[in-house]
Amino acid sequence: MDNTVSPMPLPEMAPMAEFDKTPPTPPEEEPPPGDLPPPPSADLAEKGKKHRNYDDENSWACGNWFEFLLVVALAIILLIGALVLVLFWVLYYRGGFAWNENPTLEFNLHPVLMIAGFITFSGFSMLLYRVGRCCRRIYVKLFHTIFHALAVPCVVVGFIAVLDSHNLANPPIRNFYSLHSWMGFVTMGLFALQFVVGFFSFLILLCCENATAGFRASLVPIHATFGILTFMLAVATCLTGLTEKTIFTLGVSYSYLGEEAIIINALAMTLVAGAIVMAYTLLREGFRYSGHILVSVQSEM
Amino acid sequence: MDNTVSPMPLPEMAPMAEFDKTPPTPPEEEPPPGDLPPPPSADLAEKGKKHRNYDDENSWACGNWFEFLLVVALAIILLIGALVLVLFWVLYYRGGFAWNENPTLEFNLHPVLMIAGFITFSGFSMLLYRVGRCCRRIYVKLFHTIFHALAVPCVVVGFIAVLDSHNLANPPIRNFYSLHSWMGFVTMGLFALQFVVGFFSFLILLCCENATAGFRASLVPIHATFGILTFMLAVATCLTGLTEKTIFTLGVSYSYLGEEAIIINALAMTLVAGAIVMAYTLLREGFRYSGHILVSVQSEM
Repeated sequence: MDNTVSPMPLPEMAPMAEFDKTPPTPPEEEPPPGDLPPPPSADLAEKGKKHRNYDDENSWACGNWFEFLLVVALAIILLIGALVLVLFWVLYYRGGFAWNENPTLEFNLHPVLMIAGFITFSGFSMLLYRVGRCCRRIYVKLFHTIFHALAVPCVVVGFIAVLDSHNLANPPIRNFYSLHSWMGFVTMGLFALQFVVGFFSFLILLCCENATAGFRASLVPIHATFGILTFMLAVATCLTGLTEKTIFTLGVSYSYLGEEAIIINALAMTLVAGAIVMAYTLLREGFRYSGHILVSVQSEM
Repeated sequence: MDNTVSPMPLPEMAPMAEFDKTPPTPPEEEPPPGDLPPPPSADLAEKGKKHRNYDDENSWACGNWFEFLLVVALAIILLIGALVLVLFWVLYYRGGFAWNENPTLEFNLHPVLMIAGFITFSGFSMLLYRVGRCCRRIYVKLFHTIFHALAVPCVVVGFIAVLDSHNLANPPIRNFYSLHSWMGFVTMGLFALQFVVGFFSFLILLCCENATAGFRASLVPIHATFGILTFMLAVATCLTGLTEKTIFTLGVSYSYLGEEAIIINALAMTLVAGAIVMAYTLLREGFRYSGHILVSVQSEM
């Protein structure tokens, strides 16, 4: 049994490394700081002859690499595709944009800006944590914040646009009655909460890095889970909004699946496919940044 | 350093244990079979004085236990609540059920059966993998299959009901034009795929248990991810369907938020809350059945 190697994660390190650190190196090259338990025997570690990774999920075989590239590429195409389709729909079939003077055209800003903010920018922002596997965590974190910060004005202006277009219509359209609007309210609330919590916990609290490490580490999985949830909820809200708008504007002619109906359904399917691919990319264990440190030891048994 | 303890997962064991085995016991009591790497030193393991679990996510402190009970109870309330609300809506406001002689009343079977199948039964079926933490995996697996098998007739009859009600209407309503119907098609396809793959992979392939262990273990995370996704997609499809039906039946009066509109919006919010709580319960690392085996060793350093 001279080639037995045991993978040894160092759990107290892992959550911090997940977000804050550069990719971990084996402790032979750069010993982990702090009061982490040392390898069972330093002698054993030094004698390690062969490195084998038993954790298949984390090994980057050729197949895994191509799967990763494929789903990330697909996710990017779908995130941009949704924005292109909604722009095409609004510009080609709904008369483009306006502000204030024409409430119908002002409304058109709503679907475009909400998809830009909640789907495209937020989607890219989340993808960064999979694409930026080899980058320093702090850069990934900064770009994650920047992309989400770009989403904020889109969401705010998109929200004002729909309120304005309702209030300026003749007769005015009531606000916040439909289940779409209630869902939008929940989605915006979750988004705002995530943004504020994320900003303060993962950026501001870095000023006292060591004291807040445990707290920040415990927040990571909650922030990530609610991030994916907010994205899914945003997709569902978009789909109810598209249903509303389509029935209000196309009416019974929707059932004849004219050009515009096909474009709207294609946009809906792009959003659904985007949700599927994003969830797969974000939840797939093997695609995650893994804070595991592999220790190569040789058993004396 | 006489109390250093290193948690040592045995990764080749873990994925099988996730689905197939009774909760693992420390190797001192029942050594794991096969060619797993032994603990670094049996002597060290025997000398272990203190057992400490560094993997905080898996430790069941009092707080975790109450959090677990709370979210599971909430999930159960929301899954049943959605079914109760849709039944109340259909019976009290939409005139109840019929078959064939009245297409409008036949349609009413559609939302009730789809929510029963895709939300309540499927939701319970997935929750079993969190509730049944202490049970033998094979029983959990069987009940998971039974609950999903109960969902199948609901979905099938719910699907026939909407096709029938469209075809029997005067004039007939066209099928498969709306984005709701396209989403329903994708959801039913994913559900069927998951059911067939799950049934063959995790039950039929058990007949040659050892030969298929690796294949089954590699399928587990994919099956779980697509299961959650199918549930989320089902919720989104329900919400677009509710939007459609509400606008078609209530029209402009929807904006005055009468009794029926409130019930429909409450149903929608129950579905949204159900999706949030289910995703949290299913994705929360600490609630998962963990196949880790803790080895207690005492370092000589």
